[in-house]
Amino acid sequence: MQWYMVALLLTVLTSSQGILTTLSQSNGRYEYDYATVPFLAEVFKLLVSSMFLWKESQKSPPPKMTTDWRTVRLYPIPSIIYLIHNNVQFATLTYVDTSTYQIMGNLKIVTTGILFRLVLKRKLSNLQWMAIILLAVGTTTSQVKGCGESSCESLLSSPIEGYMLGILSACLSALAGIYTEFLMKKNNDSLYWQNVQLYTFGSIFNMARLVVDDFRGGFENGPWWQRLFNGYSITTWMVVINLGSTGLLVSWLMKYADNIVKVYSTSMAMLLTTVLSVHLFNFRPTLQLFLGIIVCMMSLHMYFAPPQMLVDLPSPTLKSDPESLAEASSDRRSDS
Amino acid sequence: MQWYMVALLLTVLTSSQGILTTLSQSNGRYEYDYATVPFLAEVFKLLVSSMFLWKESQKSPPPKMTTDWRTVRLYPIPSIIYLIHNNVQFATLTYVDTSTYQIMGNLKIVTTGILFRLVLKRKLSNLQWMAIILLAVGTTTSQVKGCGESSCESLLSSPIEGYMLGILSACLSALAGIYTEFLMKKNNDSLYWQNVQLYTFGSIFNMARLVVDDFRGGFENGPWWQRLFNGYSITTWMVVINLGSTGLLVSWLMKYADNIVKVYSTSMAMLLTTVLSVHLFNFRPTLQLFLGIIVCMMSLHMYFAPPQMLVDLPSPTLKSDPESLAEASSDRRSDS
Repeated sequence: MQWYMVALLLTVLTSSQGILTTLSQSNGRYEYDYATVPFLAEVFKLLVSSMFLWKESQKSPPPKMTTDWRTVRLYPIPSIIYLIHNNVQFATLTYVDTSTYQIMGNLKIVTTGILFRLVLKRKLSNLQWMAIILLAVGTTTSQVKGCGESSCESLLSSPIEGYMLGILSACLSALAGIYTEFLMKKNNDSLYWQNVQLYTFGSIFNMARLVVDDFRGGFENGPWWQRLFNGYSITTWMVVINLGSTGLLVSWLMKYADNIVKVYSTSMAMLLTTVLSVHLFNFRPTLQLFLGIIVCMMSLHMYFAPPQMLVDLPSPTLKSDPESLAEASSDRRSDS
Repeated sequence: MQWYMVALLLTVLTSSQGILTTLSQSNGRYEYDYATVPFLAEVFKLLVSSMFLWKESQKSPPPKMTTDWRTVRLYPIPSIIYLIHNNVQFATLTYVDTSTYQIMGNLKIVTTGILFRLVLKRKLSNLQWMAIILLAVGTTTSQVKGCGESSCESLLSSPIEGYMLGILSACLSALAGIYTEFLMKKNNDSLYWQNVQLYTFGSIFNMARLVVDDFRGGFENGPWWQRLFNGYSITTWMVVINLGSTGLLVSWLMKYADNIVKVYSTSMAMLLTTVLSVHLFNFRPTLQLFLGIIVCMMSLHMYFAPPQMLVDLPSPTLKSDPESLAEASSDRRSDS
C-alpha cells in the first residue's frame, strides 16, 4: 500500500471521529462512560494485530520477532509519555480556556518538526520548514474566533503558567510520536509483533487509569468493568472501532512513512471536520476558516511536491530537452 | 541604487502615509480639503522630475527623450484608468461596508500577478505563484475582525453586485500598475522624461477632478484654488510630500524592478502601519495580525529567496564542494 493512501484514509477516519463522537451523544450528553472508549480501542487494536500476526506466522518465512527484554522494555514508554501528557493537559486546562488550549495545540506541529530534526536526525529543506510553520499558522487561523462569538478571550490574557504548560504539552505530544517512530523503525521486526507489544502495554495502562479513576471517585459509579458496555449504542461501537483503526493506521505510518506525514494527515482531518460541521451541524463558516484552508493547502503542496516542480520556471527549452530536468533532479537526490 | 533599498524606502514611506494622515487631523476631522492633497502631490512629483530632467540635460550624453506623438499619447492612459477605478471604488462602497472593501482590496495582489503573466508575459515559478496567493491570504488574515469588535459583518452578506464591483476594482487597480510598468519599460527613455509626461497628465486630471467636484457641489465652498492651502499645517505638507515621494519611488520601481516588488512593498507597509498603530494609537493587537504577519514573511522569503537555497537539503557534501551549488544556480539562471 502507498503511504499517501494510508494518510488519506487516516484523514477521513480521524475526521469521522469527531463527528461520530458528537453523534454518539444523546441530548448533548454521553449515555455511556467516555473514559472506557480509549481502553476498548486499545483492546481492539491488540486483537486485530494479534490476528494479523497469527496469520503471518502461518506463512513462510515466519515474521521477524525480537523477544529480547532489552527491546521489549522500550514498548511501554509511549504509554508512559501519553500518561504524563494527559496530566499536563489537565493541569494546562486549569489555567487556560478550551479555545486557547485548542489554539496552542497547533504548536505540536512545530515541536514535531523540531524533534524530528533533533532526535531522529532527519533533514528538511528550508521550504519544508516553512511548510511546517505555515501548516501550524493555517490550522490556527482556521480556529480564530469569529467576531460576535460568545467566548472572547484576548491574546495572551491567561496566566504565564498556562502558556508554559501548553508548550510542555506540545513537546510531550511530539515526543510520544517521535519516540514511536524511532521504536517502529529501530529494527525490521514484523509490524504486527511491534503492535502487539505496543497495544498490550497500552491496554494495561488504560485499564490502570480506569482503576485509578475508580479509586479517586470512591467507586461512586461502581467498578469500571460494570460500566464497560453500559449505554453503548451502535454509534458508540463505531467510535471505538474508528479510534482503534486510526491507531493502527498511525502505527503503519510510523513504520513506513513518518511523523510529518501523520501531522499533515491529522491537520487536514481537523479542517475536514470543520468543513463537514458546516453542513452537518449548521456551523457558521468564517472568513478565517477559508483563509486557513488555503494556507494549509499551500503548505501541503510545498512540503510534498517535487522541489524542481516548485522552483522551475515554465520554459519551452525544458520541453525540447527533458534531460536537463532529469539531471537537475538527480543532482538533488545525490545531495540528500 | 539597488531595487530592494528603493522597495524598503517605499514600505517605510507608504506606512508613514497612513500615520501622517491620521496625525494631520484635528479632533478626528480634517481642517483642510483632503481632495487637494493628491493634486499637490502630482505637482510636487512634476516639479521634482522636471528638476532632475533639467540637471540630466546639462550632462553629456543628454537624456534620451522620445517626443513622438504616438508615444506621448500613451501617458494619459494611467490617469484615465485611475479615474475609472475611483468611480468603481465609489460605486462598490454603496454596496459593501468599508471593512469588506478593505478585505477585497487584497484581491489586487492576485490580479496583479495574473496580469503580470498575461499582459507582460512574465513567467513565474509555481512557488512564486503560491507566494503571491499567500501574500493575499496573509494580508487578509491580518485584517480579519477580532471577536468582540463592534462592526461585525458575516462572510458573503453583501449583495452580489458589491463583490462583482470589488473584483472589477481589483482588476482596474492591477491594470493601472501593469500598464505603467509596460509604459516605463517600453523604451529606454530617461526616467525623468517619462515622469514629466506621466505627472503632467496626472496634474491635469487631478485638477479636472477638483473643477468637476466644484461644479457638483455648486461652488458651495468657493472654487478649488481658494481652498488649496486653507487649513494646511506642517503635517499636511508632510502628507503631500510623502505621497509625492512614494509616487516617485513607485515610478522608479516600475522602470527598474516590477509590479510584484511594488505589491510586496505596499503589503508590508500595510502590516507595518498596523504594528505601529498598536504603539501609536493603542490599537489592540489580535492573534490574526500575528498569524498574517508570519504568512506574509514566509511569502516574501518564498518569492525572493534563491530557489536552490529553498529546496536544497542541508548536506555536508555541499560545504566541501561549493561548485555544485554554483552550477545548480547557474542552471536555473540559464533557464529563465
